[in-house]
Amino acid sequence: MTDSNLADTIVDRWTETRGPLFTDMYELSMAQVYVTQGISERRAQFDYFFRSTPDYGTHQAGFCVSAGLEPFLGWLCGLRIDEPHLAALAAMTSATGTPVFGEQFLDWLATPDRFSGIEIRAVAEGRVVHPHVPIVTVTGPLAVCQLLETSLLNHLNYPTLIATKAARVVRSARGGSVLEFGMRRGPATGVNEGIRAALIGGCVSTSNVEAAIALGRQPIGTHAHALVQAYMALGDGEIGAFRAMAQAAPDECILLVDTVDTLDSGVPNAISVFDELRAAGHEPAGVRLDSGDLAYLAVQTAKLLDDAGYPDVSIVLSSDLDELNIWQILTQIGDDAERLGIDPGPIRNRLVYGVGTRLITSHGSGALNGVYKLVGIENSDGDWIPAIKISEDPGKVPLPGRKVVWRLYDQRGAAVADLIGLADETPIPEASNVVHHPTNDGISHVIKREDISHIEELHDVVFSTTSSADPASIDDLAKRCILDVDRLDIGVRRLVNPHRYHVSLTPKLYQLRKELVAQAQL
Amino acid sequence: MTDSNLADTIVDRWTETRGPLFTDMYELSMAQVYVTQGISERRAQFDYFFRSTPDYGTHQAGFCVSAGLEPFLGWLCGLRIDEPHLAALAAMTSATGTPVFGEQFLDWLATPDRFSGIEIRAVAEGRVVHPHVPIVTVTGPLAVCQLLETSLLNHLNYPTLIATKAARVVRSARGGSVLEFGMRRGPATGVNEGIRAALIGGCVSTSNVEAAIALGRQPIGTHAHALVQAYMALGDGEIGAFRAMAQAAPDECILLVDTVDTLDSGVPNAISVFDELRAAGHEPAGVRLDSGDLAYLAVQTAKLLDDAGYPDVSIVLSSDLDELNIWQILTQIGDDAERLGIDPGPIRNRLVYGVGTRLITSHGSGALNGVYKLVGIENSDGDWIPAIKISEDPGKVPLPGRKVVWRLYDQRGAAVADLIGLADETPIPEASNVVHHPTNDGISHVIKREDISHIEELHDVVFSTTSSADPASIDDLAKRCILDVDRLDIGVRRLVNPHRYHVSLTPKLYQLRKELVAQAQL
Repeated sequence: MTDSNLADTIVDRWTETRGPLFTDMYELSMAQVYVTQGISERRAQFDYFFRSTPDYGTHQAGFCVSAGLEPFLGWLCGLRIDEPHLAALAAMTSATGTPVFGEQFLDWLATPDRFSGIEIRAVAEGRVVHPHVPIVTVTGPLAVCQLLETSLLNHLNYPTLIATKAARVVRSARGGSVLEFGMRRGPATGVNEGIRAALIGGCVSTSNVEAAIALGRQPIGTHAHALVQAYMALGDGEIGAFRAMAQAAPDECILLVDTVDTLDSGVPNAISVFDELRAAGHEPAGVRLDSGDLAYLAVQTAKLLDDAGYPDVSIVLSSDLDELNIWQILTQIGDDAERLGIDPGPIRNRLVYGVGTRLITSHGSGALNGVYKLVGIENSDGDWIPAIKISEDPGKVPLPGRKVVWRLYDQRGAAVADLIGLADETPIPEASNVVHHPTNDGISHVIKREDISHIEELHDVVFSTTSSADPASIDDLAKRCILDVDRLDIGVRRLVNPHRYHVSLTPKLYQLRKELVAQAQL
Repeated sequence: MTDSNLADTIVDRWTETRGPLFTDMYELSMAQVYVTQGISERRAQFDYFFRSTPDYGTHQAGFCVSAGLEPFLGWLCGLRIDEPHLAALAAMTSATGTPVFGEQFLDWLATPDRFSGIEIRAVAEGRVVHPHVPIVTVTGPLAVCQLLETSLLNHLNYPTLIATKAARVVRSARGGSVLEFGMRRGPATGVNEGIRAALIGGCVSTSNVEAAIALGRQPIGTHAHALVQAYMALGDGEIGAFRAMAQAAPDECILLVDTVDTLDSGVPNAISVFDELRAAGHEPAGVRLDSGDLAYLAVQTAKLLDDAGYPDVSIVLSSDLDELNIWQILTQIGDDAERLGIDPGPIRNRLVYGVGTRLITSHGSGALNGVYKLVGIENSDGDWIPAIKISEDPGKVPLPGRKVVWRLYDQRGAAVADLIGLADETPIPEASNVVHHPTNDGISHVIKREDISHIEELHDVVFSTTSSADPASIDDLAKRCILDVDRLDIGVRRLVNPHRYHVSLTPKLYQLRKELVAQAQL
């Protein structure tokens, strides 16, 4: 078995963890209703979208990065309902002892290729996405579409949350490499999907050996305090630990310098060992700082390393990092350098960031509020009927009907708006087009045709009976993300209090929703 | 294949998702150092503990509930390093093209039964645990103990976080059933471990069909807004949806009543359908409220159901619930009942809580800060040397050496303190015993022998070459949790601003740490 086979084996294991019954009970209950009432085969459409970007308390994201689509499609392609699944469902009984699932439904579920017959259109994984925009639309038999809800939400919500956080962290590092270090405090096996999303968002690799192999990256690591503690307890001290580390990995030696005292013990000991390494014909790779005032220590460490002849050795920072902490560290380094009369550029350029808990848990906003809503259904005459849901909160009324999403780019090539319209519409047909806020009835604005250089339709068909797109590599997905983030207005990209990106409705879609709400309230 | 086989298959898949290389790269790097330097077989001890309870912003937990141990032991028992793993490691190269892992280390890793020879002592899963107390201690060959670090942390941190949150939510419900509903916004496959932990913390079941089967529970669900939307779009209205649901599941009919208008449409339509059900010889099970002012709506809904002759129908509440929201709902119901001159008891008793996102993500505190630290190592003479780590933050200096943990119960049977001492000590040997705060040098207090009715040693041997305890059932674990929470002081249990539970050090342990820190700082 080659490495690539091991990677495939690991990915298969990840996929298989979610079986065909990885779903909420009520999806099965509803599917049974549709089957027994004879409407299970009516064509329906469900949209997946989120209502707001993650709000980390002091700083709400200006955009999200879509992730999780291709693993979801992989799960879908591998779906098989087998005898044990049917037996388990058949064995479930109500409080009065009657079976929960009847024969008619179980026979329906056991039909070969039960999950074929659907078409999925989606915004590609790795793309920048915004609130209220349908990211995935599933069209097909009502009961089949319904059954997919929970797994789709589970596959997309968390990865999109983490890819978004990663993109923010990576931008805050201003070109410095960001490494994913979160598996020890992350959500159990969920870290695998989190790591994949972090790489899409721009992390260069991960400490998780298995995930790195599965995703085609080299895993990254240094050493723990335990190594230094062990050598101290054995009487060889911190320098003994550093020597042992250098001997075992002479060409990739990164030393953790804060076990005793960073500037008085760790860095001087590291430099002594680096000198020994160089004398033996090797170049050291770096030091890691894991506690204390990281900005101050980075400047002082850089100075000591420079003076000792190691201007190219990396300084890896870790310890509860996130986008604000990294921003603060870089700002402080700039201020400190100015005070000391040195150039902060070379210091910043040698920094590498190990980001753990706060990335893998999306610190401050631990869940994306993505939902999967029925937006249309075929009636007994084969006519397409848009579906609506009423709510006291206008932000919770979904957009009815079959829709198209266009991304509009201005003359500079920047994305300025996502426009949502009905399937048969032409985007911005007039020289001057009034468009509507997705949730706030009172807000509209005008898009002039002359301001728009390019209109991109965001949805591709990613799954249908006849076609399924080839999965993209993680590198491709990460490139998509970079390209899209680069095309955002600088104000939308900023970490705190970002400009709101425009998501707008065409007048036709806006009117349709208004009419359906009025009808439902009659 | 029987149901129980399906359950086993699902559990096996969960376990197998984390393979032998599910670890941080640096564990392998350090193990290679120990192997090449000839100290890999020295006996060492690592402790797993957390430094503080989850702090949800406005309300810090007064205790935690341990979870994840038995899945970790399952993973450990199934560990096998196979040819593909060795090949993948052998293929890793440094920037200069030299192999990262040498033959000596790979041969060592490939040794059969590589992970035997260790002993694990632990506080049993499901028990209440407190900061700084070693929950798991791993003793064995240095390199093997080191290799287990990341997987152990991954297996225990997140489940302990979720079991803790669940125990709080369940207590806040004051006897009402709590259902786990979080898979749609939870951390991808991590929800499986989260759900298991939620059941340990006292949730009665989950909506996740696969997890429920694996854990021996009946999955629970109602229906979604989509069902009502579909029937509305098809012209049959909300009542058409309710009728269809009732027909498909006459003995467990729970109707979601907030799609149009809870009190003007949902509940009256539900009552009509309940009347039809009853006429056909069935009893309805419940209604679900998923939006709006849940306390107000619960009171009004109860009134309507009572008046219609359905005093026993459950009212299921959902929508961003957590322990504070449930507490607030129950308080408001009490106030409202008083105002209306009715008894709040029957209303409270019919409530069921569907708790999703905020439980599965531990809203407000998304990670437990559990760590795994070297505390002792054997020197070349076979003597046991306690290990230390220095930090500017006294809370980060671990407790050195081999230790025992005793839980002390007072004359009422309440747990009043966890006392940590050295392995050869007798707990509270004197009539009056000074004990020390685990991190704050200036704080000590006195434990009088006459106040203590019972002393329990908290650690059991849970894994060794010769023995491995049988795994307990989820029901047993949940019972342990209830028993332990009941034995906490009522002040420690409260949701906001809890009394601090005493975790204390014996004078001998306190002195040892003090001496080691002083030596290391020389």
